Amino acid sequence: MNTYNYCAAPQDVDMTKRATLLSICKSVLNTAGVDAYSNGFGVDVLNKDHRTWVLSRFAIELVSQPGQYQDYSVDTWVSDYGRVMTIRNFSLKCAGEGFGNATSQWAMIDEQERTIVDLSKCYEKYGFLKDDIQPPIAAPKRLSSIPAGISVLHKVSYSDIDFNSHMNALRYLEKMFDLLPLEWLTKATNIRLDVHYMKETFLGEEISIKCSEQENVAFFEVLKSDGVAAVRASFKKI
Amino acid sequence: MNTYNYCAAPQDVDMTKRATLLSICKSVLNTAGVDAYSNGFGVDVLNKDHRTWVLSRFAIELVSQPGQYQDYSVDTWVSDYGRVMTIRNFSLKCAGEGFGNATSQWAMIDEQERTIVDLSKCYEKYGFLKDDIQPPIAAPKRLSSIPAGISVLHKVSYSDIDFNSHMNALRYLEKMFDLLPLEWLTKATNIRLDVHYMKETFLGEEISIKCSEQENVAFFEVLKSDGVAAVRASFKKI
Repeated sequence: MNTYNYCAAPQDVDMTKRATLLSICKSVLNTAGVDAYSNGFGVDVLNKDHRTWVLSRFAIELVSQPGQYQDYSVDTWVSDYGRVMTIRNFSLKCAGEGFGNATSQWAMIDEQERTIVDLSKCYEKYGFLKDDIQPPIAAPKRLSSIPAGISVLHKVSYSDIDFNSHMNALRYLEKMFDLLPLEWLTKATNIRLDVHYMKETFLGEEISIKCSEQENVAFFEVLKSDGVAAVRASFKKI
Repeated sequence: MNTYNYCAAPQDVDMTKRATLLSICKSVLNTAGVDAYSNGFGVDVLNKDHRTWVLSRFAIELVSQPGQYQDYSVDTWVSDYGRVMTIRNFSLKCAGEGFGNATSQWAMIDEQERTIVDLSKCYEKYGFLKDDIQPPIAAPKRLSSIPAGISVLHKVSYSDIDFNSHMNALRYLEKMFDLLPLEWLTKATNIRLDVHYMKETFLGEEISIKCSEQENVAFFEVLKSDGVAAVRASFKKI
């Protein structure tokens, strides 16, 4: 297990002066990248073999969010490597208190073929490391197609794209959160987010982002222009 | 003069594996915040007086952009305090070589009244510091209303808003850059960006972002729903 330190800087907080859910997800996903990098199996090494890590599923639970200028830490460890997925976990602390946990599933893809690489065949090649510590929260949920709700169209733009040439994982979350009533983001203290990244979307693609709200849960679905689901998510106020 | 260190992490680069202009602007503006904070006149101190810093004008020139995982540094210093504006400068270095410079003008506003605070009256209160080093590049240019070009509408959303409750300075740039031909962002090596923030825009506001391209310069204008200019910018391939 390794620990990485962050600070809820002014650009990470909203008008409530509390670190946004998005900025915390960003720290968590950044931690995944930096930890893989510093252990010798980051995208820098994989890129040499025309491979990269792709986030498949992600879940995070928070009971509070750090205030502006508060330092917080993210512990991270890999608990398992399957043939297709590796499971990376996170535990978040602020001022000595745990305020959240997360777990994620990553696949390795061949950048040219866009196919999944068998992780069991490259365990030694990349020197994968793991800890015998279970994930701190339940695995990311299965999510189905959502009922009718609000829907917005978005053309995938340069600023949405990352080094993998596809729309960035955090960008989908940003577009989804923008469809929520403001108080879900500014007032909720006890939340769980589940995300399932299913298909990539690319520059110039016209996608639709749908949101359906039911009591204390909002369900999201991002559809590609041909109607195929690219991302599904649920945001629950516990 | 103080120096702050950054790394062009995977989330800061585009498909060319080069740090995006936006990520460099983000480091520069972050440096401004952190340096003000560590010198005792950051937004944390100003907030106690219901005041905050607001970016008014900004210019940056780059001759290259760091590659993925390259470390780079930002030197910053304040060269002047006027009654209305303070001038903060930046010099960027990567692997021992300068790759860019920037200069910015900031006003202090009263958060409740939304009026400008006379900086000459709070020089001692906040312990302002300055260096006798001139700005490294020409001051941000005056920019006029732009001729007809392409135009997109955007509703200001939660993810656009910062701790000041208005649309974030970097978000305007993001929206503007998304209107440029891709090769301006992925291939240009020698650029200058000038930005003039004129009016704030707020959550739920419908704004239009206009872009007019002329040979090696693109001009941008963001208009509020009543047609008043909120931001103007020019992006020049030198």
